[in-house]
Parts: sequence; C-alpha cells; structure tokens
Amino acid sequence: MALIVQKYGGTSVGDVERIKKVAERIKAYRDEGNQLVIVVSARSGVTNELIARAEAVCAHPSERELDQLLAIGEQETIALTAMALHGIGVDAVSYTGAQAGIFTDNAHTKARIQTINADALKRDLAAGKVIIVAGFQGINEAGQTTTLGRGGSDLTAIALAGAIDAAKCEIYTDVDGVYTADPRVVKNARKLDEISYDEMLELASSGSKVMQSRSVEFAKKYDVVFEVRSSFNHNPGTIVKEEVASMEKVVVRGVAVDKNQAKVVVSNILDKPGSAAKVFKALAGANIVVDMIVQNVGHNGVANLTFTVPANEVHKATKALDPVLQELGGKIASEDQIAKLSVVGVGMKTHSGVAATLFQALADAKVNIDLISTSEIRITVAIAQAGADEAARVVHAAFGLDKA
Amino acid sequence: MALIVQKYGGTSVGDVERIKKVAERIKAYRDEGNQLVIVVSARSGVTNELIARAEAVCAHPSERELDQLLAIGEQETIALTAMALHGIGVDAVSYTGAQAGIFTDNAHTKARIQTINADALKRDLAAGKVIIVAGFQGINEAGQTTTLGRGGSDLTAIALAGAIDAAKCEIYTDVDGVYTADPRVVKNARKLDEISYDEMLELASSGSKVMQSRSVEFAKKYDVVFEVRSSFNHNPGTIVKEEVASMEKVVVRGVAVDKNQAKVVVSNILDKPGSAAKVFKALAGANIVVDMIVQNVGHNGVANLTFTVPANEVHKATKALDPVLQELGGKIASEDQIAKLSVVGVGMKTHSGVAATLFQALADAKVNIDLISTSEIRITVAIAQAGADEAARVVHAAFGLDKA
Repeated sequence: MALIVQKYGGTSVGDVERIKKVAERIKAYRDEGNQLVIVVSARSGVTNELIARAEAVCAHPSERELDQLLAIGEQETIALTAMALHGIGVDAVSYTGAQAGIFTDNAHTKARIQTINADALKRDLAAGKVIIVAGFQGINEAGQTTTLGRGGSDLTAIALAGAIDAAKCEIYTDVDGVYTADPRVVKNARKLDEISYDEMLELASSGSKVMQSRSVEFAKKYDVVFEVRSSFNHNPGTIVKEEVASMEKVVVRGVAVDKNQAKVVVSNILDKPGSAAKVFKALAGANIVVDMIVQNVGHNGVANLTFTVPANEVHKATKALDPVLQELGGKIASEDQIAKLSVVGVGMKTHSGVAATLFQALADAKVNIDLISTSEIRITVAIAQAGADEAARVVHAAFGLDKA
Repeated sequence: MALIVQKYGGTSVGDVERIKKVAERIKAYRDEGNQLVIVVSARSGVTNELIARAEAVCAHPSERELDQLLAIGEQETIALTAMALHGIGVDAVSYTGAQAGIFTDNAHTKARIQTINADALKRDLAAGKVIIVAGFQGINEAGQTTTLGRGGSDLTAIALAGAIDAAKCEIYTDVDGVYTADPRVVKNARKLDEISYDEMLELASSGSKVMQSRSVEFAKKYDVVFEVRSSFNHNPGTIVKEEVASMEKVVVRGVAVDKNQAKVVVSNILDKPGSAAKVFKALAGANIVVDMIVQNVGHNGVANLTFTVPANEVHKATKALDPVLQELGGKIASEDQIAKLSVVGVGMKTHSGVAATLFQALADAKVNIDLISTSEIRITVAIAQAGADEAARVVHAAFGLDKA
C-alpha cells in the first residue's frame, strides 16, 4: 500500500474503450490498497483538432485564448475517466489544473509551475477517493487558464508527486520504457532497468522521444524518482533517478539519433572579435535553437562557422543572417539531410576511450563524420541522414549495448 | 453607445464559419461605440456528443462529472469567438463561468446562480475589450464546475445583464422573436413587438420553445428587460419586459401548442380524504411533472382522477401508481396522442368572454375538448393530437391574432 501518482498519455486514453481499460488498471491498483492520483492527457489527436479549428478562425491565435481552448482536451478525459471508474464501482473525482491548485507563471502555452496548493486534493485522497487530474494545464494568479507546453502532462505528474510526497510516480506511455536505442531501428535494443536524470536529459535533447527535457529537469531538481512504463502491458519499465555509483560501471547507457537536422555553413566571414557573437545573436533573435557549433581557424582574415539547426528552421536561419552577412561579408550554404547520433552514459566521466571506440565503429562502417560535439556524459556526431539507422546499429553493437 | 449583453445560441456558433459571422456582427456593434459582453453557447450538437461519450463509459454518469465534462462545450466557443474577433482586429478576451465570477449553489446539472462577482470582467470592459463569456456554466463555493441546466446560456446573459446593469440584453437565436403562434403551423402568425414576463412564462410552460421558464423568471425577478431576436438577420425582435397598462388592451397575446402530452385516467379509486394526495405523492416521488388535473365527483364511494403528463413519462407514471392502486383499488388507463392548446394574454385579467370565444371556435372546427385548466392569464384545453395544428389555426383566427 502506497501513495502513487500515475500518468496516462494521449494514446492510453485515446477513445472510450481505452479509457475503460485504463479505469480497469486503476481499479486493480486501488484494490491492492494504494492511494492513487491519476494524471491524464487529452485523447490523442484532440489537441491537433482544436489547433486546426483555432487556425480556421484566426491566422495567429493569441496564446491566452489557445490555452483557454486547449485545456478542454484534458478536461474531457478527466471527467470520462472518473465516470469510467464510477461505472466499475471505484469512488473517483476529477480535478482541472485550477482545481488541483497548480499555479503557474503567465507564460501562456509554455507556463512554468510556481506552486501547488494540493489541500483540496489531499482531503479527497484522505476520504478514500481516486483523484483524476488534468495534465498539461494550470492557472495563473489572475485566474487565467495556462498550459505547460509539450510534454506538460508528464510535468504535472512529476510536480504533483513532489508536492504530495508520493512513494512512486509512474509515467504510462505507449512504449515499455527507455531503451538502449530506438527498438524500431536497432532490433536488439534492450530496455534499461534504470537510468540517471542526466543521462535521460542528454537522451531527450539528442532525439529520444520518450520524454521532454523539462519534466526530467523538474524531477531532478525536486528529486522525484519516476518510472516510464507501458499502459498496454504489465511489464516493469525504466526507473529514472539520481545517479548512483554503480551506474558509472556502464560506459554508454544508450544511443540516440535525431534525423531532423540541417547543417548551415557560413564561410568567408570577416574574422574579428565579435563576428561569431553577431551571427548567433541574430539567430537567437529569430528564436532558432542552434546546436553543434564549429569555427575553423581563420585564414587571410576570414573564417568559417558551421552549426546545426532543426531542418525546418534552415530558411528562417538563412533569412535571419542576411543583414549580418551584409555587414561582415561571407556567404551561406546549407545541407538539410543531416542526422545527429549521440552516445550517452555517466560512465564516460571515469572511462576513457569512448570517442575512439565510437569513431572506429563509424569508420569501419564507412560513415563520414561531419561535426563533433561533446558534453561530460555525451558524444555527438553529425552524419549523413541516409546512413543514420545503420550507424546506430553499428555503434549499438560496438558498445555491447545488446548485452545486459 | 451603450453597455450591451448579447447571447448567441448553439446554432449561431455552430461551426467555424458561423463563429466568424458572429464575430463580424459583434464588430459592427463595437464599431458603433458600444461596450459589449457576449455570452455564447456550445456549438450545436456538441453537448449531445459529450453526453453520448459519457454514457459510453458509464451507464449513469455522476452529475458532478457531467458538469465538468459539459462545460468544455462553451469553453471551446468562447476561445474560438475571441480568436475570430482578434482575426478582424477587435480586442476581445474570453471568460469561463468561473472566471466571470458566476457563483452557483451545488445542484450539479441544474445549479442556480447565487451571486456574480463581475469585478475582473468590468476591468477588462473598462480597458476597452469585448468580453466573451461561456454560457450555461458557473462555479460553486468549493471551486467545482457547475452547469445551469437547459436554457442555461440565456440565464447567464440575463443574470450578467442584471449584475453589470447593462442598457440592453439581446438574446440571439434562430427565430426572429416571439410569435402569436408557431409560424411553421400557423402561416399568418405575427411577430410580437413586445410581451410581458408573465405572458412569456405562460407560453414557455405551454409548449413554446423560444425560451426556458427559468431565464424569464430570473429576468422578471431582477427586472432585466431583454430582446429575443435572430442572429441570421438584422430585424428587430420581441422585447420581453414588465407588464405595462397598454398591454392589457390585447386580450390574447398568443397561442401555444404542446403535442408531446398524454392523458392518464385513474378510475374507480376509493373516494376518501387523502386518496388524491396519495396518488400525486407517488407521482412526485417518481419526479413526474403532472399538469391539468381533473377529479370527477364521486359515485358509490369511488372517484375518477384524470391528469396529463409528458408522453414519455406515461410508463413511469403507471409504474409509480401501482402500489397506490393496490391499496386504494381502481384501475389505470392512458392515452398518449394528446395535445395541449393554450391561449395566453394579460388582457384576460380585465376582459371577459375569452373562454367562450375559445370554446366556440373549437366547437365550430369540431374539435372535442377533453380537459380544461386556467390561470389568471391563460386558458388551456387538452385535445386530440391529430387535430391540434388545425385547432391552432382556427383559434389564432378567432382571436384576430393575424392583425396587428
């Protein structure tokens, strides 16, 4: 018997039949004597439908009104989930983000949770009810509806687990947990029993789609241990927690690939102090997230700058740099069939030779490396998109990730 | 320039195209310099869809959760309407019932408005914004979402108009106003320029579908004058207001027909004090609304009781009376092809001969009268459903309602 927070994603509550299945799962946990707080997302597809309707009435909907609109997706699933539980004899009560006391800042569509006043929720919990909370949404001080951005329901679950000091936080999704690589690409990828917050963060920002970085950052900050697992079976998932000494024995925890990248080369730019700053200030001003930056040593007073951006932002990046090139000279070229391949593991902090193994594996597979960047626990290479899947398989094997 | 509350019903905001049309209307009123508070319903059909989904997960959804679910219908239209206004350059902001400070009691699915705290709304109004408020919904003291029952959006508009002391309250719907009879049945029915609250109430409870009684009662209680008019054209509608002396010159304001009725006859019941009480207590216990009661004089110690009920409640009524008949003897017969025809007018208070004119007109048309009931400003007869439309035309003509 324990106090458990469970989060069910959009595919898990995708239609009334699936909502009834989720209710059966909740009842089983309830029958074991657990106290339960359930966070649900909108039915998969609903958010996109609502956005389409918004864009049909207004080319650029205001973020405040978008939040007011999008919040109804989760409001529907909380009510239906509570009803489905009533239908099988479980006492349950639904809470919107506002009712659950999830107070955020005013940053509509990407609000940050400030405080949680869980008093009402705790009273209902003490009265023996199962609590169903709308993920992804909150309320600001002025009483306006806010939403937490992509992956917001995970964040709701983790923040609530912290606020009510839950014994467990389980993130139910449509995959079995966190794998050593994408199992659709690398057939012998292995589900991890556990992973550190930092590794999970590096994987999230390297193309793994299991969870958004924000939720993991929040969990790390408030030390909320959580488990990623599937709502379609009863297999144990992957525990995400603070790094422990034993984790360092594993040099590489996993391989992630992000195929949705492009490379931009700014060549023959005037090589003087402040040139690079001007380039990246212009990109930041256009809200473009730049990754993997390389600057070549200057010759003849000019230098080359190379960086990667998400493939769909190449045009925006080129446009943003136009005035800078007018001033500093140089020209722009871009290539959009680029992938990033990353290996991640806290063991890298204490083991050497990871880069050598990675580069040798890629060389053996005749994969050309375009750019390289590293963090303390990650090495990333930019390669051609066409060979990315095969590269992932080769690297996965080179680090023995198929073996426990 | 005035402070106006306008309410647009479900068909007026039925899809994104209609929402954009409503936004154009609002902009036109805005451009005339008016301050506007707009109340919108859910898109027509949405509420029924949501109820179907609720019933798919649970045979008897709880009323609290139904309210949580149904409130999203209006939450969608407020956001879309605000966005559509932004799209054509009008500063607008949406308010849920809770955000508009509409506090109700705890009677989920049929909550009553207790108080309105319109401070936030007034601030935005003073700042020059058009306010879009979700009809049909409120919040109780515990912070739970409540809904106001059928016709609830009209109630929201009228209550808000009272709370902010609006100069006008306009109820936009899919008909041009209140008619002397249903224009689909009586071709020369005439739109009324004005009608008293009491007449409107009698018409509402006599089968007119223009508005629910509750909203009219609320308007009468708080003396809110309102206009019923069409959102599909610019014709003036019908003003509903407190009775003035000139109204009494018109003996009959209108004719209403309710075809959805049945007659129940309880015959040979033991004729002793308390028998009728037992019969109607049993019906009340089953939540059946009984109308038009006639008791025949008793013979041989037994009596007959006749009354009308909505046609779909005959079976429930018969079942509820079973135990009473076990005790008091007697038997039940029912007939479900019954219509009620009513003539309504405040002039009846000071004019005689209305009943005679009505009965003569029906006799001339060979319509048999089954039951008769009256109030101070209404006479109702129960007749066979088959002849009801023709009876309405005959009566409409007999009182000269086609002439201004």
